[in-house]
This record gives sequence, structure tokens and C-alpha cells, in this order.
Amino acid sequence: MVAAVRVAPTAASRAASLLRTVQYTHPPSCPCHSNPGHHHHHAKPQVESYARRAGQRAFASPMDPSKQKEYAFEMAASSIRFGPGVTQEVGMDLKNMQAKRVCVVTDSTVAKLTAIAQVKEALTREGIEFTIFDKVRVEPKDSSIKEAIAFSKPYQPDAYLAVGGGSVIDTAKLMNLYTEYPDADFLDFVNAPLGKGRPVDKKLKPLIAIPTTAGTGSETTGTAIFDLVAKRAKTGVAHRNLKPTLGICDPLNTRTMPSAVKASSGLDVLCHSLESWTAIPFNERTPRPTNPILRPAYQGANPISDIFSLSALRSTVKYLPRAVRDPDDFEAQSEMLLAATLAGVGFGNAGVHLCHGMSYPISGQNPGYQHAGYAVPFPIIPHGVSVAVSAPAVFRFTAASNPDRHLAAAEAFGVDISNVKREDAGAVLADAITEFLEELGDQPKGLKDLGFTGEHIDALVEGTIPQQRVLMLAPGLDAELQREKDQLRGLFEDAMTH
Amino acid sequence: MVAAVRVAPTAASRAASLLRTVQYTHPPSCPCHSNPGHHHHHAKPQVESYARRAGQRAFASPMDPSKQKEYAFEMAASSIRFGPGVTQEVGMDLKNMQAKRVCVVTDSTVAKLTAIAQVKEALTREGIEFTIFDKVRVEPKDSSIKEAIAFSKPYQPDAYLAVGGGSVIDTAKLMNLYTEYPDADFLDFVNAPLGKGRPVDKKLKPLIAIPTTAGTGSETTGTAIFDLVAKRAKTGVAHRNLKPTLGICDPLNTRTMPSAVKASSGLDVLCHSLESWTAIPFNERTPRPTNPILRPAYQGANPISDIFSLSALRSTVKYLPRAVRDPDDFEAQSEMLLAATLAGVGFGNAGVHLCHGMSYPISGQNPGYQHAGYAVPFPIIPHGVSVAVSAPAVFRFTAASNPDRHLAAAEAFGVDISNVKREDAGAVLADAITEFLEELGDQPKGLKDLGFTGEHIDALVEGTIPQQRVLMLAPGLDAELQREKDQLRGLFEDAMTH
Repeated sequence: MVAAVRVAPTAASRAASLLRTVQYTHPPSCPCHSNPGHHHHHAKPQVESYARRAGQRAFASPMDPSKQKEYAFEMAASSIRFGPGVTQEVGMDLKNMQAKRVCVVTDSTVAKLTAIAQVKEALTREGIEFTIFDKVRVEPKDSSIKEAIAFSKPYQPDAYLAVGGGSVIDTAKLMNLYTEYPDADFLDFVNAPLGKGRPVDKKLKPLIAIPTTAGTGSETTGTAIFDLVAKRAKTGVAHRNLKPTLGICDPLNTRTMPSAVKASSGLDVLCHSLESWTAIPFNERTPRPTNPILRPAYQGANPISDIFSLSALRSTVKYLPRAVRDPDDFEAQSEMLLAATLAGVGFGNAGVHLCHGMSYPISGQNPGYQHAGYAVPFPIIPHGVSVAVSAPAVFRFTAASNPDRHLAAAEAFGVDISNVKREDAGAVLADAITEFLEELGDQPKGLKDLGFTGEHIDALVEGTIPQQRVLMLAPGLDAELQREKDQLRGLFEDAMTH
Repeated sequence: MVAAVRVAPTAASRAASLLRTVQYTHPPSCPCHSNPGHHHHHAKPQVESYARRAGQRAFASPMDPSKQKEYAFEMAASSIRFGPGVTQEVGMDLKNMQAKRVCVVTDSTVAKLTAIAQVKEALTREGIEFTIFDKVRVEPKDSSIKEAIAFSKPYQPDAYLAVGGGSVIDTAKLMNLYTEYPDADFLDFVNAPLGKGRPVDKKLKPLIAIPTTAGTGSETTGTAIFDLVAKRAKTGVAHRNLKPTLGICDPLNTRTMPSAVKASSGLDVLCHSLESWTAIPFNERTPRPTNPILRPAYQGANPISDIFSLSALRSTVKYLPRAVRDPDDFEAQSEMLLAATLAGVGFGNAGVHLCHGMSYPISGQNPGYQHAGYAVPFPIIPHGVSVAVSAPAVFRFTAASNPDRHLAAAEAFGVDISNVKREDAGAVLADAITEFLEELGDQPKGLKDLGFTGEHIDALVEGTIPQQRVLMLAPGLDAELQREKDQLRGLFEDAMTH
């Protein structure tokens, strides 16, 4: 399999790719969420070459922007406040913003935690009127999002306050969005090709996000993810104008996570950093947007996201094992919350790719696996587990696109890379990840441990194809649909056992 | 001198320091710009200890916040768009923001450059009404700022667009501020103790900044600097709500810098990164603000600013010599613009200290030095030259506060630190900086080369004392005024020759 996927695109597949580019960019008013840029990506080293390439391209003669590669990247992140106990400041923040009518968004579990009690006290102390929506569904569906929007629309809040994990923060973003665009059809803003990928061209109401897990990084990103049930796809809305105004990261709030939740949220952070670090470079993406508002948040790796991604990767390797092992290791937990936020800034401005793309059918088509430490009365493959389980296979596959970057990632795991050949970068990184997962404990050693067999692979491949939003950033994935499916099949096969 | 300044504060000086803390925090409503936190700083390694310390402190019993150390930090930065040719997008950006009446701010030199021509064309193409203020003074004074405000107040723009170096961007920030607060007294927002340090508690109009130099990083910060002539001090306004909405970093715009300007702006970047990396840690600062809006932008080194500062330092060491040497090295110039912006995010959320504090009297009390390559008919010590000239002396002084960090900085200059003793960290970093300046070329080898002699030192020390805004972040500086003056005297003496 590995040899096959390293083959460069043929002339025929390139022609097909070009055709697909043209189709994808119709209507031309919104190329941003339908980007097939990965089809043009060839294997070559990219570290530190952004500027040189961009310089050359700036003087190229003008041509149809839909066929031009991107020449710029945009970095946007929420303001972040970080400190133990900082939750108590949120009432003053909302008052400073002149908020008078706040919609607090949470879920039924978080509603019982200290974080919510502190929030209520902080708002009451400042005399701010608020109402609490605590019906967020963990792993939201379009139906649960619509229910939440039906709550916020009549309330007409002048600010939102999300307290919880990624599901809560994502739901709050969409409540804010659709309350500000009351006449929009739900699919208008959803990522193309499943939705219409309309850009968010209005300023939304202020949203403050207080994460209670160290994982999604949603407090810094303009992304909101949910299941679009009718299409059997995980998709969402992604635009930088959706991002919270302020993320309040209080490490006292993540102490309540059970050890198994710490592990799986931490693996999400690990994959956010690894995937954004290895995503196709921003200046290999096509088309160049015709208006800056159409520049996608998932724009590919770029010099600023790189800094965040690599830094978050190093922190996760160092602190996640400690945070999982010792519930009293407050330093490690605190560093993991910071790493989650940094990784959020990284992937929020670069994107993720195969681990996330493949994880959605893995979680959704669960043959009956019940992850240890999750006290729920039904089978569950936690999000972080479902992304990490394919990671060794994924980076073995992507390494050929940029061995230097994959070696740098292996180095972040503590591997001495001084004598490693570039063609072994994938194998070395895959081994480092496998070892990391094994030492973390309680992790499946491949899809087999989750109950998947060869018979499931067709459905897993079919379930991955709709995730174009992330697949477009996967280096080495082929343009032609059948080839792409073959590659994904190879990846799922390789992920059966580490 | 070096031995003397390494002495730990005595009990007496600590008592004095505490007293000063109390005085400084009166009125208690604005502790943010009058922070004497450096007086409590003792020499100990700080790398990676933020979280551990914060964790301990979170459970301390409540006490008077004016005596408590800070427990949180806040990271805020403008959105950044980066790419060659990206200036042309600004008309669409302003239209996307629904701007209908834009005040373009620039200076008489930049007014003649391509950048402004492109901006005019971009605005005209989108049918946006605009007026140009091109009378920004380079190195602004309060009088030039007031003149600019007198221009914007009657025009009542709904957005600002600054095109130029730090002077232009800073002036635009203040035009925006005082036009939104038409009844404010000029000193209301100016940093305490010179002004009243009032926080910016309103949302200002959108400001887009297009830098034409790679130096100040002003496109990402909430800081605006000017000469307060009556007080003979360089001061300004610093609040995160002052920061631009968007920085548009177009490396085509910095190609027009003469080589000497590239060098001195690059030295500003060098010192921004070195000073913010070595500033006192945020959680050694007192007092803890009573409201998050009072948390200063110059909050001390913190885990996020660290990432930016160190990354900008490494880039500057690598690319500045190339950018200065070869006007056709577009990659190096482009990387320097990025480094300037990254350093801006770093020091904009951490602060600078001694190099900047000492630079203001150095530039202002110039005995007659005329820097090579600056074709002006009067003596001039460019800002970057005046900050870098004291750098070897400064880091020799500050190294005792945190040898590990100073060694890491030396390593960024390419020094093999594996066998360097911690007590030699200052000497090693100072040597690395000296060598870097020498190889860059055309730089003074100390204050003597600028024409300063021992007779000037009293005035230089007196000119530094008012810069409390930055001195408060200098590790190792004493609480007691006479001791502080002695230390500064020692620093100026040491800076006479590298």
C-alpha cells in the first residue's frame, strides 16, 4: 500500500483534478469550503519554503483566480485569558461589554459542576440578567442544534456565555449565528458541498467560552461541528467571524475530568497538532479566493499555525501522560489546557485532515465498542480515541509529502532523528505514536480492538468521502475518486493493527 | 558593577518596595499602568514553572488584591493577513466591514510610495469614500498627535486605515481613540504615572494597519508611543482595545526600505523579542487587577508570548543579516516582516524593559550623531540603533534573574551552550549580541561611538527614570529609587563600549 500511494498523479488524474476544480468552484462566489487543493500537491519538502515560493508567485502574470494557488494566509484567534480561578472574572467581562441579557449555554452534566455555580455567582454579583440553556447534546446533531437555536431566537440575548466542552461551545456559536441571521436556511452556512458554505459577513454578538475539557480548542476557533444526520456526515460551519470574543481558560475547571476523558481529549489535541503541522501548505491550496472573506479558516499549514502546532505537540507529549496518570498533577493538567488552546489556534487557522476525516465513520459506525472509563449505558468510541487510532497509519501515509516535517514531529516525541533516513520518516513517526499510545494505557491497538473487521472497510471508506472539508488538506491524497477510495481503503487496512 | 547588581534585595529595600506598591496602586481603580512588580522579583529559574506556581497560589487565602501577585495572563492580537500583494484586498475588507467613510492615515514619505497608490486604487474600486491624512510626524509628539486628532474628529470616519511605519499606525490608533472619546482629556488615557492610565472601555472603530517597515509590530499591538514633550518622556497609551482589527502584512511594501532602515528596524525586532522573553514573569507582577479590563497589555513574560518571542528571535538572527546585505533577497525580507509581526504579538502581550527604557534618552539626548544611510539634514540615532546599543550591557545585567532563559537566547544566536555555566549566561549572551551587531555592519560599538561621554550619564539616567511603564518589567532592578539610579548608571557605563 505504502508504495502505491507514493506514486505521483498521472496526467489523466491531473486533468480530472482540474475538471473537478472547475466544478467545485461553481458557484464562483464561494470557493472557500470546497477546496480540492490537495489534488495538486506533490511530494516535496516545504519547511521554510513558504516565503520563497510566495515571492516567485507574486510576479506571475494574472490569470483566472479559480486556477491560481493561494498567496496569503490569515491568522485569527479569540483573545485568551488563562489562569486558575479566572472564571470568577466573567461577570465583570460581560459588564465591561455592556451585556444586559446573557444566554448561558451548557449541558446537563456541566450544569452540576462548580464552573457553572461560579458563573452564576459572577453574573449575579454584577447584576446581569441571564438565562441558562442546559440541553446541549454531547456530539451535537443538526436536530439538537436547531433545538438550541429555537431557544435563543426568542430570547434575543446581547451576549452568549458557553461553559463546557467542544459540543457546548460549538452549539453556542451556532445559536449566535442563526439568531443573528433569523431568515437564513440552516444549510446556508454549512460547509460545502453538503451545505452552501455562505460566509459570515456580519459581526455576531459577543461570545465568551469557558472550556471544561482540555481537548477541542473550540474556545479559539471559528469552527462548529455537528452530525448532519440525513447525509450521515460530520460537518459544520467554519468561518473566522464565528470565533468567540474571549476564551477563559481556567485550569480549575478541567480538574473534574475523569482520567479516561483526560486521555481521550488529550489525544484530540495530539492529532490537532500533528494534522495541522502536516497539512498541505496554504500556498499549495487552490483556488485563490476572490474576496478575503472567502479565505477559509482551514487554509493549510502556514508559518504562524506551525508555531502553535509544534509547540502544542511538544507540550502534549510531555504533559498528557502525567495528566492521565496522576489526578493531583495540577501542573500537567494546566499545561494540557494550554496545549489544547494552542493546538486550537494552530488547527483553527490551518485545518486537520485524515485522522479527523476517518474518525467520523469510525465513531459513527461503532460495531459495539465500549471505551473503558466512560460510564455510559451504550457503546462509545470517544472522539479522541477515534482520531488517534488511525494516526500511525495516517502519518506513515503522509510522510512522503514532507519527510522533514514528519521527522520534526518524531523528534517532538523524543526520537533521536539524527541518523534517520528521510524515506523512513513515516515509519519512525508511526512507531513513536504507537509507543506513545501504548504507554498512555487503555487505548485500542488498532481498529480490530474496536471490533472492526475487513467487512466494515467499504462502509468506513464511504463514510469518509463526504468529509471533503478536511480531506482537501490531506497531503498525498489523489484527485480521482476511485484512487482516493483505494487510498482510504489502504489506510483503514493499515489501521487495523498498529 | 555586575557583582553589585546581582545582590538580592535587602529587607529594607523590600519594605520600601511594599510601601511603593501601596502608593502606586492609589487610586486603586487603575493599577494597570503603574506596576512596580519588578521590585519583588528574585533571581530564580522560571522556564516552565508558570503553571506550578500558579497552581499553588490559586489555593492561597484571599487577601488585599493590591498586594497579591497576578494569577492570569491575557493574550490578544490583531488578526494578521500575510502575503505578497495582499494590500490590494483592503478595499474589499473595508466594504465587508460596511465602512463608508474611511480615514487613511500616512506620512509624507509613504504618501509617495506604491503602497498608498495601491490603497487608493483598492478603495476607489470598491466605491468607498475616503480622505487622506498624510501629516503624521515620524517619532510623534503629543502636539503632532493632537493635530491628527483635530483632523479625524470633524471627519467622523467609520473606519481607519493606517499605511506606514510604527509612527503612522500609532497615530491612527490615537486618532481613533480620542475621536471615540471626544470629551476625554488628552492625559486621561496616557500611561500612569505621567497620565491617568484610564482603560479603554468602549469598542473603537475598525482600524486596518498596513506596515511599510518590518520593525515595530504596531499592526498587532494595543500600544501607541509618543513624546510627551512637557515631561521630556517617551510614553503613550497601552490597552488591548486599542489594537487594530486587522494587520495586512504585505512583504512587497517593505522592499522600499533602504538597507540602513532595514537594519535599524530589524534591531528593534531583535530587542522586542529579547526583552519580552526575559521580562519578569506575569505571575511575579503585582498588583492583581481588580477588574480584567485593568490587566495591562505589558503583563510580563507568559507561556504564549514566550512562543512568539523566541520564534521571532530565531528568525531575526537568521534573516536580518541576509535582508540587510542583499536588497534582492525577498525571502529574507519577507521573513523579517513576519518576524516583526510575531515579535509584536510577543512584546504586545508581555512588554519590553531596559533596552527600550534606556533608548528614549539615548535618542532624545543625541550629542550630534548622524547614522549612516539616513539621508536627513539633522543628527539622528534611529530607534532600533538606540535600543540595540545597550543590549549587551542590559542582558549581562538581567541574566542573573533567569540564567536558563538567557542561555536559551544565546543558543538562538547559534552559541553552543552545552558547556556554559549558568553564571556565565549574561556574558555569553552579551558576546553573542555584540558579534551579531558587528557582523551586521554600520552599528555603533557602544554609546561612545554615538558621542556620549561620562558627563552625559546623569542626564541619561534621569531621562530613563520616567519610563516606569517598561522599567517595571525589568528583572533585577531595585525598588529603592537611589539604588535604581545607581543600577542604571552602571548600565549606561557598561554600554559605553561593547
